[in-house]
Amino acid sequence: MTTDQTMVKIILDRWEASVKNCDTLVNSLSDEQLQREIAPGKNRGIYILGHLIAVHDHMLPLLDLGKANYGELDKAFIESPDKAVSELPSVAELRSMWNKQKEELKQQFDKLSAENWFERHTSVSEEDFAKEPHRNKLNIILTRTTHLAYHTGQLVYLK
Amino acid sequence: MTTDQTMVKIILDRWEASVKNCDTLVNSLSDEQLQREIAPGKNRGIYILGHLIAVHDHMLPLLDLGKANYGELDKAFIESPDKAVSELPSVAELRSMWNKQKEELKQQFDKLSAENWFERHTSVSEEDFAKEPHRNKLNIILTRTTHLAYHTGQLVYLK
Repeated sequence: MTTDQTMVKIILDRWEASVKNCDTLVNSLSDEQLQREIAPGKNRGIYILGHLIAVHDHMLPLLDLGKANYGELDKAFIESPDKAVSELPSVAELRSMWNKQKEELKQQFDKLSAENWFERHTSVSEEDFAKEPHRNKLNIILTRTTHLAYHTGQLVYLK
Repeated sequence: MTTDQTMVKIILDRWEASVKNCDTLVNSLSDEQLQREIAPGKNRGIYILGHLIAVHDHMLPLLDLGKANYGELDKAFIESPDKAVSELPSVAELRSMWNKQKEELKQQFDKLSAENWFERHTSVSEEDFAKEPHRNKLNIILTRTTHLAYHTGQLVYLK
């Protein structure tokens, strides 16, 4: 295994472990629990679940793996805080999107070689990437992994 | 910049950004806020702060950078759940440890070369490391970064 392959493995392993952690947690929570606020006056579980799906969806175009599938979630779950939008998908619908997305991201990520992961992501120009080679695709996975861990730490308090 | 250096930068940048996030948050919370439960019946802020210091302290021996400095925190903040140990350091004492530790970890990490980061950490044997080269020092930083993000997501609800 080359050092590059080792690094890709380290970061993808951490992403997958974080997705699994969150997935196990979400599956252990009832729809009713996910409708609750995590702490008085704070975000509800349903908002965090929708937010994670919407943020992960944007990884596809960022990684040049196709277009986002759930653009309709952005308004309620990225652009607005919780409770600002009254019409939300049901928890059952979000669970279904989460499960489908989990599989799709895995399939898409599996297609990339170690070399691909060190290429620039689509929101950095070729010129900037030449100066800042750390703005690669693997870095997207890393920042989304810490983002996911942050919100999983919140969802756990719904138990 | 070599790919190895790029990878070290990506992961250390993420660690430092996560420490800074948590640091800014902790500094914005009063001692009284840190004494509160994050959600009814859940961990208090003081417990999470002590837990983070204790866990980060163990990075030093794991990375072969010396011995742990705050072993006295383990019993209350790693081995026991919140409220199981009644005698805890004060929030002021924990803040002081956190600040001192933040500087020490930075100084110690700055000493390591990219090559050093790809060496095995001390809890993996040479034999196992030969088969599993991803169990390197950089991986310790990565797992501690997601751990830190997880708990920062909880502390933010004290605001």
